Amino acid sequence: MKNDTILLGHGSGGKLSHDLIDSIFLKYFDNDYLRQQTDSAILDTGGKKIAYTTDSFVVDPIFFPGGNIGKLAIAGTVNDLAVSGATPKYMSCGFIIEEGFSLKDLELIAKTMADEARKAGVMLVTGDTKVVDRGKCDKVYINTSGIGVIGEEYLGISTAKNIEEGDKIIINGSIGDHGMAVMAARNDLNIRADIKSDCACLNTMISEVLNTGCKVKFMRDATRGGIGTVLSELAKSKNVGIHINETELPLDDGVKGMCELLGFDPLYVANEGKVVFVVSQDDADKVLTVLKKNEHGGNSSVIGEISSSHPGSSWLETVVGGKRIIDMLSGQQLPRIC
Amino acid sequence: MKNDTILLGHGSGGKLSHDLIDSIFLKYFDNDYLRQQTDSAILDTGGKKIAYTTDSFVVDPIFFPGGNIGKLAIAGTVNDLAVSGATPKYMSCGFIIEEGFSLKDLELIAKTMADEARKAGVMLVTGDTKVVDRGKCDKVYINTSGIGVIGEEYLGISTAKNIEEGDKIIINGSIGDHGMAVMAARNDLNIRADIKSDCACLNTMISEVLNTGCKVKFMRDATRGGIGTVLSELAKSKNVGIHINETELPLDDGVKGMCELLGFDPLYVANEGKVVFVVSQDDADKVLTVLKKNEHGGNSSVIGEISSSHPGSSWLETVVGGKRIIDMLSGQQLPRIC
Repeated sequence: MKNDTILLGHGSGGKLSHDLIDSIFLKYFDNDYLRQQTDSAILDTGGKKIAYTTDSFVVDPIFFPGGNIGKLAIAGTVNDLAVSGATPKYMSCGFIIEEGFSLKDLELIAKTMADEARKAGVMLVTGDTKVVDRGKCDKVYINTSGIGVIGEEYLGISTAKNIEEGDKIIINGSIGDHGMAVMAARNDLNIRADIKSDCACLNTMISEVLNTGCKVKFMRDATRGGIGTVLSELAKSKNVGIHINETELPLDDGVKGMCELLGFDPLYVANEGKVVFVVSQDDADKVLTVLKKNEHGGNSSVIGEISSSHPGSSWLETVVGGKRIIDMLSGQQLPRIC
Repeated sequence: MKNDTILLGHGSGGKLSHDLIDSIFLKYFDNDYLRQQTDSAILDTGGKKIAYTTDSFVVDPIFFPGGNIGKLAIAGTVNDLAVSGATPKYMSCGFIIEEGFSLKDLELIAKTMADEARKAGVMLVTGDTKVVDRGKCDKVYINTSGIGVIGEEYLGISTAKNIEEGDKIIINGSIGDHGMAVMAARNDLNIRADIKSDCACLNTMISEVLNTGCKVKFMRDATRGGIGTVLSELAKSKNVGIHINETELPLDDGVKGMCELLGFDPLYVANEGKVVFVVSQDDADKVLTVLKKNEHGGNSSVIGEISSSHPGSSWLETVVGGKRIIDMLSGQQLPRIC
């Protein structure tokens, strides 16, 4: 390619668009579906039911310790499918790019996406690129959607159909890492902490758990809004009580310090590699053992349980023995965190 | 809702996000899948192969004669599925909204999307909303992806598997309407012409054609890059010659005048409701008859044919009897046209 930055013509649908597709997107994402460059990818889902999801990513900055917007765009959608009990298979990808954006950075992002997709076993099969004039977006925004196949035995997971009193709540590691890593990376904040985003595709870890045959009643990746929002939504939607022990909540010292300094509640800080599991109490130990063996689950912990008291509410039993309600996040904690 | 503009908190994933979903998105898009507000929608595709596509929409201005960004976002994806021979079924929708955007305008866009989706017989089953700070996007950008089901008999259409010499090329009406309508609507251009975008879902028209049993060899909606780019891509990818008669090209007088005034070639101006069909020569008349009966096909015309001369090239026989090559659009004609 002759230029080293994105031109408006790269979004024209004409020759420059083709050059961009060939020199970057096909170079990294190449597969039989994408190569055909048809209006739609034609896919076989083997007659199974499918799971379908979408997310847009507008994180600022686009590169941060532990990842970049491309890694986030793959992991976010892969995880949304995986927590539904589905095996992620196919993804779409839509780029909105600011005129003047560095082609080198775009290539780095595409390479990361390809690497993550390969590790997660998904294929990027259809895509789109739009270019907007300078100042009309911030470097690059990415939308991904994804399709997974789902077995009949997992259909109840996404709606938490079978949760009941006594079920245990498990998280696969420390909370708030992603949010604080992005905050630390923001130029306008003079903080440098050794905090890395937990951004990762969790489908392999989740399938290891499901393959044990353990009764997984519910899973949700705790992204924007943090685990606080997940727990509060679950309690409200299923009209159950949720009891959380603060002492069991894995929290990195750096993240804790930064949250205290900046006045954030780690319960509401975004994660990009954490899943809240609800599992039958008989299976909790087994799930914990499986999680701890996975690279993304070393600090897994049983953090609480489903209770019959205070239905519709989620409660935190604090370190000092008090109790406080975990409500839904009101207002905005951290804009453009994902 | 207490506020009349979008706040950063509407993208937080917390309470304000829920309010926005309830008061606008669920209000208009409501269906069994979306209502569950799970991470993924779980769908049944009846064991058929699926078609899968995505597009982002960044049109400026967001409201224009004949449509708005929401109508475009539904029609664009519906049409990409339909021209692949698929029946559009499910869609995802990702909004990126600028802080301060009018909730009234957002509601109008959502209502338009719901109306168009209903007419096209598709359901919006999963979505996402991000809010970026003021000045980091331009009002609202929308990504949609879509899933359709496709019968075995139509699998060759998207790759133009069976096109051959003598096949006729048909378009369902005048070209360049969308591009010029958007140009006319742009505030910074002091032109007011009575031109309306052709933006429309064409899946019903296309299924009427397919249901005749006629041999449809290829279809593509001529959006960005215009019919020129479609024809040039087709000639190159299948290594066939394409011969177009300029006299048969439907062109609205207002669009023609505006193109001449501004120096645009209507062959490369965007459409949002036009499909290039390649059909067996024996079936051309029948297809034309069916198209002309449809509300989106009144001005349908056989504009040319597949030829064995000049393989890999697309040629225009001009009104004055000359010949010129139809190459791929180089550079950018009209940024942010869709």
